[in-house]
Amino acid sequence: MITTANIKNGVNVDQLVDTIGHIQEQPELAKFEFRAKNNWIDGGHCASSIKSFYGAGQEDTTRQETFTLECSHPNVLLGEDEAPTPPEVVLHALASCLTGAMVYHAAANGIDIQGAESTVKGTADLHGFLGLDPEVRTGFDGVTVSLKVKSDATAEQLENLAKFSPVFDIITNPTPVKIEIIK
Amino acid sequence: MITTANIKNGVNVDQLVDTIGHIQEQPELAKFEFRAKNNWIDGGHCASSIKSFYGAGQEDTTRQETFTLECSHPNVLLGEDEAPTPPEVVLHALASCLTGAMVYHAAANGIDIQGAESTVKGTADLHGFLGLDPEVRTGFDGVTVSLKVKSDATAEQLENLAKFSPVFDIITNPTPVKIEIIK
Repeated sequence: MITTANIKNGVNVDQLVDTIGHIQEQPELAKFEFRAKNNWIDGGHCASSIKSFYGAGQEDTTRQETFTLECSHPNVLLGEDEAPTPPEVVLHALASCLTGAMVYHAAANGIDIQGAESTVKGTADLHGFLGLDPEVRTGFDGVTVSLKVKSDATAEQLENLAKFSPVFDIITNPTPVKIEIIK
Repeated sequence: MITTANIKNGVNVDQLVDTIGHIQEQPELAKFEFRAKNNWIDGGHCASSIKSFYGAGQEDTTRQETFTLECSHPNVLLGEDEAPTPPEVVLHALASCLTGAMVYHAAANGIDIQGAESTVKGTADLHGFLGLDPEVRTGFDGVTVSLKVKSDATAEQLENLAKFSPVFDIITNPTPVKIEIIK
């Protein structure tokens, strides 16, 4: 007998169901720790390496590649424009995460997604970052996402699935960040 | 007479002072809009392109390169591990932004930074993302940053400078995100 994996939207639904079953049996398997190491290059130019993480009850041993990402700033923000700015990188992470969350949860619910593309915009006022007005925040005052989806599901259904996105949660809700400076 | 630019920590302090002066004269120059375009590939694998932005009173015309970034998921999260996950990308953006903010504000305050490197960790519980427990958030329950800095400034001074980071604000405070699904 030939068995084929149950794949929907590129997601292995059998593996997803198995994952949920394992976590329901052993809740500690749900604990994950993600990490990045960052090195300052010069000015507003930095590079991160991303590889190790903890999850499913152990240190990961499957990831072979170390991913390298950079951030920099365009000339108008006093940089040499070698890479996107950190806030732009956050927009990339948000768009990817909303889309991925929608796709995974659609797969789990038997909903087909035939295509998805999005444009994300975030607005900010430099009075905050420059310390010129303490009433103005340093980050985005707002973000808008236009997510175009080919699917038979309703827009409301798709939005609710996308909102399982961890990065959506991280941006829309307060997340505690503890900073330890080591001299 | 030969004049040399006033560079500290890789930051052109003259240009920074000029930028502040321009914004104090014309506050609307401080308005920025950053953007990313994202395309779904398959499963939890997406790619973004980042180029255009608005700032300093106009659409940018200086950035030549379109930056391409990907997100994916490791096998244990049902992916093919082509790229870091969205939450890992957020950690990269946070580390880069904290470091860049510290470096820029140190330069503005005449503080030398000789080196900086950091490790960022974020913890999450998949009960949130999988919808198994509505009390558990989908994003990070906490992030810790260890930032090692070579500088004569105190740890407290450096932490206060780093906290001008826009991404630190985006993560630690709520940011409104408006999602429009287009069918």
